Amino acid sequence: MNHVVLTGDRPTGPLHLGHYFGSLANRVELQHRHRMYVLVADYQVITDRDLPGEIQRNITELLLDYLAIGLDPGKVTIFQHSAVPELNQLLLPFLSLVSMAELQRNPTVKDEILHSSQSAVSGLMFTYPVHQAADILFCKGTLVPVGRDQLPHVEVTRLVARRFNERYGMVFPIPEAMMGAQPSLSGLDGGKMSKSRGNAIPLKATEDETAALIRRAVTDSDRHITFDEELRPGVAGLLTLAGLCLDRPPRELAEEIGDGGAARLKSVTTDAVNDFLRPIRKRRADLDEGAVRSVLREGNAVARERAALTLEEVRRAMGF
Amino acid sequence: MNHVVLTGDRPTGPLHLGHYFGSLANRVELQHRHRMYVLVADYQVITDRDLPGEIQRNITELLLDYLAIGLDPGKVTIFQHSAVPELNQLLLPFLSLVSMAELQRNPTVKDEILHSSQSAVSGLMFTYPVHQAADILFCKGTLVPVGRDQLPHVEVTRLVARRFNERYGMVFPIPEAMMGAQPSLSGLDGGKMSKSRGNAIPLKATEDETAALIRRAVTDSDRHITFDEELRPGVAGLLTLAGLCLDRPPRELAEEIGDGGAARLKSVTTDAVNDFLRPIRKRRADLDEGAVRSVLREGNAVARERAALTLEEVRRAMGF
Repeated sequence: MNHVVLTGDRPTGPLHLGHYFGSLANRVELQHRHRMYVLVADYQVITDRDLPGEIQRNITELLLDYLAIGLDPGKVTIFQHSAVPELNQLLLPFLSLVSMAELQRNPTVKDEILHSSQSAVSGLMFTYPVHQAADILFCKGTLVPVGRDQLPHVEVTRLVARRFNERYGMVFPIPEAMMGAQPSLSGLDGGKMSKSRGNAIPLKATEDETAALIRRAVTDSDRHITFDEELRPGVAGLLTLAGLCLDRPPRELAEEIGDGGAARLKSVTTDAVNDFLRPIRKRRADLDEGAVRSVLREGNAVARERAALTLEEVRRAMGF
Repeated sequence: MNHVVLTGDRPTGPLHLGHYFGSLANRVELQHRHRMYVLVADYQVITDRDLPGEIQRNITELLLDYLAIGLDPGKVTIFQHSAVPELNQLLLPFLSLVSMAELQRNPTVKDEILHSSQSAVSGLMFTYPVHQAADILFCKGTLVPVGRDQLPHVEVTRLVARRFNERYGMVFPIPEAMMGAQPSLSGLDGGKMSKSRGNAIPLKATEDETAALIRRAVTDSDRHITFDEELRPGVAGLLTLAGLCLDRPPRELAEEIGDGGAARLKSVTTDAVNDFLRPIRKRRADLDEGAVRSVLREGNAVARERAALTLEEVRRAMGF
């Protein structure tokens, strides 16, 4: 069955290998079988930060990353949230279908509120699951690849779609969440790979930068390399990373390295990562910002056309 | 000084004389001196009602009333909320500028929540003051004629405008609320004139319907007519109504009627109202629904163009 897939990212900085193996690789796969929309969630960067900062720069970098990993603008519609008013308007009818109490109960919103740097929770953050419903339903999305923390949001989307259909007639499919078999890739300090911890390898890192990052990775002094995620998280992290890049089991790599110690492990990992990233880097080097702007312009236009159709259907169903 | 004026109504049913003397007459005046936008708030009819009902019909009737009283589409932009996605998108950046606590404190929202027929408060009702900020600021409104109960909403708009300007640079004027010297016109039962009480004279009532409505008005058995709002509210209400229609002080009318009793009072009032409504009825009879649709279509197009300019400015200011 063919799905309409909605995915996306907040433009908060360069994507890294954690993103790649966690979700991007899956998208590159999905684009061949399904109709896919990739949302650059520019409004979401103002939900939990007080200033948008270098958003324009981040959006360009995000697009460069997308195109470099092989998302094909001929197959996928990549668009910017704030460039599609017809999508955003869906927020109004959808807000009428969800009660304050239901929004307050949403665990992800609760959590984001807890970890927010803002002194007070903004109306935008509070209504975030309803925005996400608009993001998913504007294109009548049927499949939403998610991380575990995003599951409750998709539940709100399903609720909104069901209630709209009940009240105004059948307009929306009820989308499914797809939890990938996302390997949790640890960062170079053994913790979760994350841009803000500085323990991640950006997709756009050069060979030398990659080598330097891996050289600084936390390992241990036992020269005999084994794969033990609990007792040797740093070593296991590098083995996992190299294994993903080489498409080989980390245990096998560990046996090969044997008594080579951290130095050998790091050299194997560096080569694996650099070999893996080489074609991605090459594609990135061939891109220019003009091309990126034109991809986004075209994607925005396609998304607007889609959203305008859905909005018209919604207005008609509601009797406006 | 020339203002940009934003006013509007929910399309909930025919307008009546209470609306006319309370706000519509003022709009007809204002249109000659200021740039005016009149919003048909179709999304607002779903904030506190569970079903939109005959919205399309109500919108047409509202437009007929507007044109009949003399709003001139050559001077005034009349448009439909749900037809201007660029206006509605402003809700997202504006929601980021207002905290949950500030929304919860809004007394009008508190009150609407209290009187709502809905079992649970919807996200749309809760965020209503922020929608109103989008309604006012999309056209850089500087003047908002309001009733007393709307004052706190305009405060939220002023807050949003100030915060946006502080954070992203000068984009919005800080609008002023204008509390008119609105005479409080009582209904034919002596209570507040209101469609839902059935004590109002619709602008579109025929001469006979008007006469019948006034015949049923509550008065008292004292044949000597005097103007006493406290002790004789029914009599005073009719005198006020006749006075507004004739542009004469109600006390003067009372003296003229003297010992004519309720019958004479009602006959004077009926004549006054019918004389007053005659040109309005005539204009209404000359209108057809095709003309109404074209006024709305053109108004929507003008409003979209205006909203698109503001949204572009907002996106640029935010760095998108």
